[in-house]
Amino acid sequence: MNVEFVNPFLEAIAEVLLTMAQTECKPGKPAVKKDSVSFGDVSGIIGMSGEKVKGSFAISFSKSVILAVTERMLGEKVTSIDSTVVDLVGELTNIATGGAKKRLAENDYDFELATPVVVSGEKHEIVHVSKAPTIIIPFTSDVGDFFVEVSFS
Amino acid sequence: MNVEFVNPFLEAIAEVLLTMAQTECKPGKPAVKKDSVSFGDVSGIIGMSGEKVKGSFAISFSKSVILAVTERMLGEKVTSIDSTVVDLVGELTNIATGGAKKRLAENDYDFELATPVVVSGEKHEIVHVSKAPTIIIPFTSDVGDFFVEVSFS
Repeated sequence: MNVEFVNPFLEAIAEVLLTMAQTECKPGKPAVKKDSVSFGDVSGIIGMSGEKVKGSFAISFSKSVILAVTERMLGEKVTSIDSTVVDLVGELTNIATGGAKKRLAENDYDFELATPVVVSGEKHEIVHVSKAPTIIIPFTSDVGDFFVEVSFS
Repeated sequence: MNVEFVNPFLEAIAEVLLTMAQTECKPGKPAVKKDSVSFGDVSGIIGMSGEKVKGSFAISFSKSVILAVTERMLGEKVTSIDSTVVDLVGELTNIATGGAKKRLAENDYDFELATPVVVSGEKHEIVHVSKAPTIIIPFTSDVGDFFVEVSFS
């Protein structure tokens, strides 16, 4: 999997968080997820499939980060990962991957998105079951760090 | 979403657990997941997308049930949800949805499968973010109960 493929996701995530939550975020260096384990408290997961590509995408937040993002989006205090937060993570997942899909289609990488699934539960772990490597990209922002994982074959 | 659509998943799951783990399981009554919350310790999630359909599938096990299933498949004692168990849940998810895809294609419902994602973490919750309802189907077996969720639009 090359940078050409990962970058559109990073750009789309930065864009959606800036426009929807007035939050600037910065991607760190993408790395192959090997033996490392990464935990999130809430994650948006979506499948992608097309003629040339087949894969999965996940964006994972700690509780404190997603509550801060949600507060900025809604303009009100949020204290737990409730259905509002879950819907918002689903929407972020949809918009970010939809943006990446559009950018990638221009480069002749066509695929269809499935519908997102949101998982919540303290410190859950995500494994993308595929022969392709999983690329993990850490993000930093002024409300804290979060991470994104993409696996494509 | 109609029964015609859900049944192929149930049949494929029963088949894969019988052939791979010599475990007979029986689906209960499918119900629309509304305000109910369902928790799993390990879940296989996969996205599906095609011209007519778009959705997500999840199969969730408690720790005790998946350890028992894994022991039957491998013929050896397993005490934690390790990478072997995670891979096996991914494989079960692939085989069960692949079987359902094949059955559904015969009825003119074509879709492509994404690659599976396995989530582990004590008592995590899954929400399928879609305008379509989520159908939850409880299964019983001699090693304990588990459940399947399908959402399709």
